[in-house]
Amino acid sequence: MIKVGIVGGTGYTGVELLRLLATHPQVQLTAITSRKEDGLPVADMYPSLRGRVDIAFSAPDKAKLNECDVVFFATPHGVAMAQAPELLAAGVKLIDLAADFRLQDVSQFEKWYGMPHSCPQILEQAVYGLPELNRAAIKSAQVIGNPGCYPTTMQLGFYPLLKAGVVDTANLIADCKSGVSGAGRKAEIGILFSEASDNFKAYGVSGHRHTPETVAQLQRMTSEKVGLLFTPHLAPMIRGMHSTLYARLSQDIGNAELQALFEDAYRDEPFVDVLPFGSHPETRSTRASNMLRLALHRPDNGNTVIVLVVQDNLVKGSSGQAVQCMNLMFGLDETTGLMQVPVLP
Amino acid sequence: MIKVGIVGGTGYTGVELLRLLATHPQVQLTAITSRKEDGLPVADMYPSLRGRVDIAFSAPDKAKLNECDVVFFATPHGVAMAQAPELLAAGVKLIDLAADFRLQDVSQFEKWYGMPHSCPQILEQAVYGLPELNRAAIKSAQVIGNPGCYPTTMQLGFYPLLKAGVVDTANLIADCKSGVSGAGRKAEIGILFSEASDNFKAYGVSGHRHTPETVAQLQRMTSEKVGLLFTPHLAPMIRGMHSTLYARLSQDIGNAELQALFEDAYRDEPFVDVLPFGSHPETRSTRASNMLRLALHRPDNGNTVIVLVVQDNLVKGSSGQAVQCMNLMFGLDETTGLMQVPVLP
Amino acid sequence: MIKVGIVGGTGYTGVELLRLLATHPQVQLTAITSRKEDGLPVADMYPSLRGRVDIAFSAPDKAKLNECDVVFFATPHGVAMAQAPELLAAGVKLIDLAADFRLQDVSQFEKWYGMPHSCPQILEQAVYGLPELNRAAIKSAQVIGNPGCYPTTMQLGFYPLLKAGVVDTANLIADCKSGVSGAGRKAEIGILFSEASDNFKAYGVSGHRHTPETVAQLQRMTSEKVGLLFTPHLAPMIRGMHSTLYARLSQDIGNAELQALFEDAYRDEPFVDVLPFGSHPETRSTRASNMLRLALHRPDNGNTVIVLVVQDNLVKGSSGQAVQCMNLMFGLDETTGLMQVPVLP
Amino acid sequence: MIKVGIVGGTGYTGVELLRLLATHPQVQLTAITSRKEDGLPVADMYPSLRGRVDIAFSAPDKAKLNECDVVFFATPHGVAMAQAPELLAAGVKLIDLAADFRLQDVSQFEKWYGMPHSCPQILEQAVYGLPELNRAAIKSAQVIGNPGCYPTTMQLGFYPLLKAGVVDTANLIADCKSGVSGAGRKAEIGILFSEASDNFKAYGVSGHRHTPETVAQLQRMTSEKVGLLFTPHLAPMIRGMHSTLYARLSQDIGNAELQALFEDAYRDEPFVDVLPFGSHPETRSTRASNMLRLALHRPDNGNTVIVLVVQDNLVKGSSGQAVQCMNLMFGLDETTGLMQVPVLP
Repeated sequence: MIKVGIVGGTGYTGVELLRLLATHPQVQLTAITSRKEDGLPVADMYPSLRGRVDIAFSAPDKAKLNECDVVFFATPHGVAMAQAPELLAAGVKLIDLAADFRLQDVSQFEKWYGMPHSCPQILEQAVYGLPELNRAAIKSAQVIGNPGCYPTTMQLGFYPLLKAGVVDTANLIADCKSGVSGAGRKAEIGILFSEASDNFKAYGVSGHRHTPETVAQLQRMTSEKVGLLFTPHLAPMIRGMHSTLYARLSQDIGNAELQALFEDAYRDEPFVDVLPFGSHPETRSTRASNMLRLALHRPDNGNTVIVLVVQDNLVKGSSGQAVQCMNLMFGLDETTGLMQVPVLP
Repeated sequence: MIKVGIVGGTGYTGVELLRLLATHPQVQLTAITSRKEDGLPVADMYPSLRGRVDIAFSAPDKAKLNECDVVFFATPHGVAMAQAPELLAAGVKLIDLAADFRLQDVSQFEKWYGMPHSCPQILEQAVYGLPELNRAAIKSAQVIGNPGCYPTTMQLGFYPLLKAGVVDTANLIADCKSGVSGAGRKAEIGILFSEASDNFKAYGVSGHRHTPETVAQLQRMTSEKVGLLFTPHLAPMIRGMHSTLYARLSQDIGNAELQALFEDAYRDEPFVDVLPFGSHPETRSTRASNMLRLALHRPDNGNTVIVLVVQDNLVKGSSGQAVQCMNLMFGLDETTGLMQVPVLP
Repeated sequence: MIKVGIVGGTGYTGVELLRLLATHPQVQLTAITSRKEDGLPVADMYPSLRGRVDIAFSAPDKAKLNECDVVFFATPHGVAMAQAPELLAAGVKLIDLAADFRLQDVSQFEKWYGMPHSCPQILEQAVYGLPELNRAAIKSAQVIGNPGCYPTTMQLGFYPLLKAGVVDTANLIADCKSGVSGAGRKAEIGILFSEASDNFKAYGVSGHRHTPETVAQLQRMTSEKVGLLFTPHLAPMIRGMHSTLYARLSQDIGNAELQALFEDAYRDEPFVDVLPFGSHPETRSTRASNMLRLALHRPDNGNTVIVLVVQDNLVKGSSGQAVQCMNLMFGLDETTGLMQVPVLP
Repeated sequence: MIKVGIVGGTGYTGVELLRLLATHPQVQLTAITSRKEDGLPVADMYPSLRGRVDIAFSAPDKAKLNECDVVFFATPHGVAMAQAPELLAAGVKLIDLAADFRLQDVSQFEKWYGMPHSCPQILEQAVYGLPELNRAAIKSAQVIGNPGCYPTTMQLGFYPLLKAGVVDTANLIADCKSGVSGAGRKAEIGILFSEASDNFKAYGVSGHRHTPETVAQLQRMTSEKVGLLFTPHLAPMIRGMHSTLYARLSQDIGNAELQALFEDAYRDEPFVDVLPFGSHPETRSTRASNMLRLALHRPDNGNTVIVLVVQDNLVKGSSGQAVQCMNLMFGLDETTGLMQVPVLP
């Protein structure tokens, strides 16, 4: 059994980790920290876990995280890097669901997250935790920077096109829509029910932290210069992410060949599902599961290919992906504990 | 492995059965019928099941239901009783999620469902499938009438009070609220998104089919005459049911004793969770799981006890309960395939 | 033109007042205060008001409220009573949308709102602002305690029954459901979209501030002792309130007579609509309007009458009712500025 | 008073017309037809209109539409053109909210709507009813083809850029999101609450009827060849439309100049609101009103300008726009009856 610790389990990625780990056959949930909720049984905060998670939150200093095999950080940016040196020294593996270990370029991190990076030397050995594109490195990693939710859809959606070299890499567009849980469990006016319900808006259009993360990863797929316009929107749903990706074709290529690029890339992937050409995937077809689904379109057989990508932002977009990484790091079958069937309706 | 057939798998209780059975370790999904969708792979209608359910719908005449061990009817009222004689003759067990085998009083059935009952002799041997109150009979049943969603909450909520004889049984009130999926997957104006969203209404206040079903079952718990006022409402959510039950106390009894009545009744029940006195259970704490949760209140220590009951109407209120019955009928652990953790948020 | 000031216009009742007053033909919006948003144009906080409301928030000390004809307090409890003496001395009328002037019993106020009442002598002359039941007093009032949202539905729903003396007043039950905007525009976890959406729960079942307010008013309608069980619930919609009222009949009375009690009581009321017996009013039929609609039921012609009452909690349940009071206080037609047609769908 | 008839008033654009016309000071609602609901008072179908709309539906043959001054068609495609010749001959003006008179190219109409056009000679004199871009022609029109909802946002969003000749017209992208009411009041599975709620999807990506309509109108603004990629999505909200428009700059132009193009174009428009550069308009800021709001972005001061456009699909996107046209056709102030303040929250 893998002894698992969670730092910051009171938010949505934290409770989603708990949901997934509660039924994971190889995991022993050992410690969960919260300074504010020290002593409170987890199930008192989340009655959905009554009878399924028996431990209580404990203050960080009491939590004995050093005795865990792996610690997940479901915390604000900056927390994981502060605790990383001590945990790594104790031989504990670390998976950060925030951004501390996503950007290898320290100056980019400091620009977008507004804080100095406290352990650039650890950052250097950190591995970007997108299994489909980085599986080998994840298997031997000590530190995982778990991808952002939007970047997961953009990378898996653009990858086959960039790898094949068939699109204009300098003018990619990603028009993305996220459910409100992506904003976290924070007491903020903008994500109140009465504000976000029956409403739709874009945000961060002039610049968003997920752009540099995505560009850095996309750039690894091609020698051409990558340029990306990323437009996030807030949609009135709890879970779900829909990314509509636009790429201009730079080569003469048929639709069957385009489709084959994607099917070949993801044929053996348990969590990426390529739908028939021309399909319209719905976010709910992935709800509460680790599946990501995508489909291709090419209106009027013109010069632009559109990739529609859907996932549950809290699972494949966050906590599920983190568990997938953990499975790889500990030599388990990658799908262990992650085969929940999507909840529909 | 239990060979399972499903008649009418295109509605919400059908797809929920599929979700649950797809991961049930003792089930082999053998046949699913739909006259209209003959030949269509199930996963084409429900992409959430891609890669998880491989069979296709088949027309009823081709479906070889006779070779199944058990057949679930997720159909409109009247379908199960038409096919029951042949299936039972072939030794197939039958679980009807509609109302054909819920009401032992044939005249009541005919009054509320507007059709003659075609096999009253089978009805006589049918067992009402509420495991917590009827477990022994279910174990040896050949035919199960699976309870309605509302009746499940009302029975489990009132049972300890009626059994203990501490309330006025003649004036029970159940003010109940259901998510829209309870109305089924039918092309009807009233349950369109633009009609049901951001809206709340009562319906069937002057009379609803679930009243006679519930009264008949409640009457089994007490020798006093049962009178029930049942008021259903439609709430703008997909899944979830919240029943607010009011019972006038007929005896002097303390709150601790009241609480003990419920804790004693459900101590060993895996799917009934009694919350601390004065709690406010939320429907989402049961979402997509087979749990039912309840809590007691007694405002001003007055003469009325209020029981708040929540469940997922499609799981404990329907398909999950049916699987729970199946487990009992085939000698399996009652929780097999039903331990999904509620999805929150 | 009536010179109007608003204290605390940043919440939902505040912005709803602004929406209504912006098109009120007899109102000149003169001042709106917010300590925190001093100098910010109202339309910058609420772009829905761009081009329609031109003034800016100002700090309370700059606001010259003394020069207004009437000041609305859309503030937390306790603010209005602190400023009332000075405003009244300056001849300014005052309408408090919070609870400072709702409860004539000071000890009740102090018990339920947890603060001393600072001006009981003003409270004595304050008038409870429910026009349908208190019209004459409102016309000559200097200070209005605007009713709570739930109490409005309970009073108008029970009134004809209590006035006629046909029900058991000691055992009234009100099972009420509110949209989330009723909780206000506050940065609180419980009313986040991801918490309140696709969810349903009761709250405050063991005791809620609107019970003493309602009981005090209901008691004015009858010489019998009033007992009320009030159970509030939170429904996943922005606006809308649905109260399901239960009263035991104490007299032999026919349904036509019951219906006549209501039609007679509200025949000339512009904002109370009595639907045909047995109707099921929907909250959306009142959305964004000052209408309250109700309908009667009597299941099985039994001993209980059920009254279904719907309104928009922010209009008839709050800001619209306040404007209705203002119209009366200034001798205008009661419907002035309040004839918006409900928004459906 | 203008005598107004409505054909097909049972759908969402019909009831929205009724909401707007019920308070229009210059309109006398004369007839409303529905074959199916002949004799039913309008307010029985839509209780929101009780006390506000007194007429009943009547069968088309009884409706005396010939005596109206203007008839609105809130009907499926094909109905208006069938009745147009007779009405025009009788001197009745006609505003079609469907597509019969939107596309001047008959072959395009027949291709996209799958039916022959029955009166091409009337089509020739029909005027496209987008007041901001076509005001003079609307004033003297006998027949109006009211724009589609999506096309309204795309035209008003792209217009200043195309007129100024500063963008690559051949590669415009419009990523659009609509509330569910845009799909109409039809008994279809896909728009059920339990299907569309908590879900997001694209549809019609490979080709949608609003593309040819929009391209034809955009082409009128420029001599360069227009190419448009239009991607519609269904968002889980009742009302609201958000269009995210992408245009590649073909000239060196500053952000202030870009902003000035829009402010100059719409300075005197009562229903188009240009927000400050870099704003993020929300759909709810236009809810239930005839306002359209837009804002410009230019990420990284790069080569692409993004225009965010929001409106209420049922008002400015349909029925409100139709009333705006009517006002122009009858010499009224364009804003008559259309100054409802947006409903927020």
